[in-house]
Amino acid sequence: MNVDLGPARVPGFRFAGVSAGLKKASGALDLGLIAADRVCAAASVNSANKVKAAPVYVTIDRLRSGRLQAVVANSGCANSFTGKPGLRLAIESCKVVAREMGIAPELVAPSSTGVIGHLYDFDKFSAGVRAAVASLSSDAMENFARAIMTTDTRPKMASVRARIGGKTVTVAGIAKGSGMIAPHMATMLAYVVTDAAAAAPTLRGALKAALPSSFNAITVDGDMSTNDSVVLMAGGAAGNGAMNPRDVDAFNGAVRAVCEALATELVRDGEGATKLVTIKVIGARSPGDAERCARQIANSPLVKTAFFGCDPNVGRILMAAGSSGAAVDSEKLVLHIGGVKVAARGMLMVDALEAAAARMREREFEVRLDLRLGRAAATILTCDLSYDYVKINAEYTT
Amino acid sequence: MNVDLGPARVPGFRFAGVSAGLKKASGALDLGLIAADRVCAAASVNSANKVKAAPVYVTIDRLRSGRLQAVVANSGCANSFTGKPGLRLAIESCKVVAREMGIAPELVAPSSTGVIGHLYDFDKFSAGVRAAVASLSSDAMENFARAIMTTDTRPKMASVRARIGGKTVTVAGIAKGSGMIAPHMATMLAYVVTDAAAAAPTLRGALKAALPSSFNAITVDGDMSTNDSVVLMAGGAAGNGAMNPRDVDAFNGAVRAVCEALATELVRDGEGATKLVTIKVIGARSPGDAERCARQIANSPLVKTAFFGCDPNVGRILMAAGSSGAAVDSEKLVLHIGGVKVAARGMLMVDALEAAAARMREREFEVRLDLRLGRAAATILTCDLSYDYVKINAEYTT
Repeated sequence: MNVDLGPARVPGFRFAGVSAGLKKASGALDLGLIAADRVCAAASVNSANKVKAAPVYVTIDRLRSGRLQAVVANSGCANSFTGKPGLRLAIESCKVVAREMGIAPELVAPSSTGVIGHLYDFDKFSAGVRAAVASLSSDAMENFARAIMTTDTRPKMASVRARIGGKTVTVAGIAKGSGMIAPHMATMLAYVVTDAAAAAPTLRGALKAALPSSFNAITVDGDMSTNDSVVLMAGGAAGNGAMNPRDVDAFNGAVRAVCEALATELVRDGEGATKLVTIKVIGARSPGDAERCARQIANSPLVKTAFFGCDPNVGRILMAAGSSGAAVDSEKLVLHIGGVKVAARGMLMVDALEAAAARMREREFEVRLDLRLGRAAATILTCDLSYDYVKINAEYTT
Repeated sequence: MNVDLGPARVPGFRFAGVSAGLKKASGALDLGLIAADRVCAAASVNSANKVKAAPVYVTIDRLRSGRLQAVVANSGCANSFTGKPGLRLAIESCKVVAREMGIAPELVAPSSTGVIGHLYDFDKFSAGVRAAVASLSSDAMENFARAIMTTDTRPKMASVRARIGGKTVTVAGIAKGSGMIAPHMATMLAYVVTDAAAAAPTLRGALKAALPSSFNAITVDGDMSTNDSVVLMAGGAAGNGAMNPRDVDAFNGAVRAVCEALATELVRDGEGATKLVTIKVIGARSPGDAERCARQIANSPLVKTAFFGCDPNVGRILMAAGSSGAAVDSEKLVLHIGGVKVAARGMLMVDALEAAAARMREREFEVRLDLRLGRAAATILTCDLSYDYVKINAEYTT
């Protein structure tokens, strides 16, 4: 599927991104709004962290109805670990949006990302909402994308077109996040909107199908934010009728393509990342084994620092595989780095290391471990661990 | 118990550390030997990694008998992921030691640490063994400790004395390791020797009792080496008789004190470490919950970089706790950093952060998370994640 990484227009949706003064940097965009022309079917998935932020609780509650008309998201403050005052703040914030838009508060879902443990200034937020509603535009997706950035170095958008029920529909997404939880900032946030007509259960199914190969298949630092949320809204302006099974497949494919593209952008822009590395484990005894093994490799600080150093360190990769809990037989496995075979038959292929190191000097490469014990496979995207990761996460003290 | 961190003499044991030319640095000690005057009762625990190094397989095999008279250990080459040639090399290496000492090869256990995927030079190794046997001395424990160092910045030794069966016995240990697996080097190795008379089952029991609070309670980078080994040998020169239950308790306590002291030294000298941090989780619903939660905090790159930056980043610690899988209620938990209460009743205590940051600027401090859900507790020692960790692990390319 052809994925466009620039801003898109989606019939029935308008966007805004304004500066409300919630971020320290003067004039930085920090309040974003997505507004649909009418009530949308909607679904979301949210952080599985047992310590959840206030807006996540409100979002989960709002999405029970499967209906949504607006999303308001701020950066600069995560409104996480803020107790009952934080919950009240999230609910009041939705009311402000509802009042300005003339819709019910239950149709507004909130998100926050930024410093944990603090409340944002409600008056600044309210003024920002008024400015955002006044500036809503179908061309302003990029402003929204910029307003939710924290340590991200660039806005992240992706869109595809698909034929559904004889109509061309657009599925477009915006995401942010570069550490699973960044300096004092937090969160992976993603919003996917479409003009397709789709019921809430279809949307839930599409998100469920998209997650394993997108947002659940990436890691920057193995840490799970308290604020993670993915929201999918379908407005129906495309005018397609009820979906038949083939339409659902096409729709799911479009949502998955957008989610995968956004997820890849998140890792590419990972904190301090200089490389995007695909960890592919095949030939595992079970799907659980494949995923455990791929994740252990993708999260190992020793493997990630070796990536940064362009060091084809077979020992570290096998160390991680062997300690993952997955069935591993060192005599059977075959390891490729950047397409170069570096280990097989229980032996390191010393003569191949130079060629593998050359491939690792590229910005993107693949580590492919064939365990040769079964048929299960898993793929995880990760990045390297650089000086800048330490700098970003150690030098900005609270 | 009074733990001495300098070299010790243990009646019935002699030590050597020589330069065999296995390390690149000319003249560096790289071959160590521990020789007992007579056959010892012995026990070991070894890497649970499914990818194990050749000497680990040989050591496991040797220890089945519960008897050992010598340990030979080299640095500079891990003899790991070296297939059948590696296994042959480990076995032949033991034969050389046996021949030079005039004992059976089955009484010699080998260890290796260093580059993975390569074999060491057998001739250099054999010459080194001859030099080591010729220089064996009861005063040479520190030479042995230096010969097994890789990225360690200092040798690590610990000893205690205990009264057992009316006799004073010495329990002394030597360890190395500063990444769970270092640059191209690998491994946590520890050797504990005692002049106490103790049967192999007693030794196994003592190791089993010592591990949870020592070598299994530390983490530098969450990675498990392919070469990890802990060996315990009892020579019996102290002349104590068969141990009664109270003697076993005293002996276990002595072994545990030595193991805990060595484990603490390993973390203190962790790769790039500037701080030793005790992660204490109490009030957990189950022991499994307590350990999962403490480990997740201790291994989180975001938490570890915050330690490096002396940043009392409550959000990251709670993010890690909440994502550990353990039962966590953010409204109930209480968090202390360096003795300063920084979170309680679902709220960050903003006014306390400056005092907590001051404590974090010390070389050693404690993070204490009371989940207030039960009675289980766990303690894990960890270090910070610094620029030097990245430097050590990224800049030395193969």
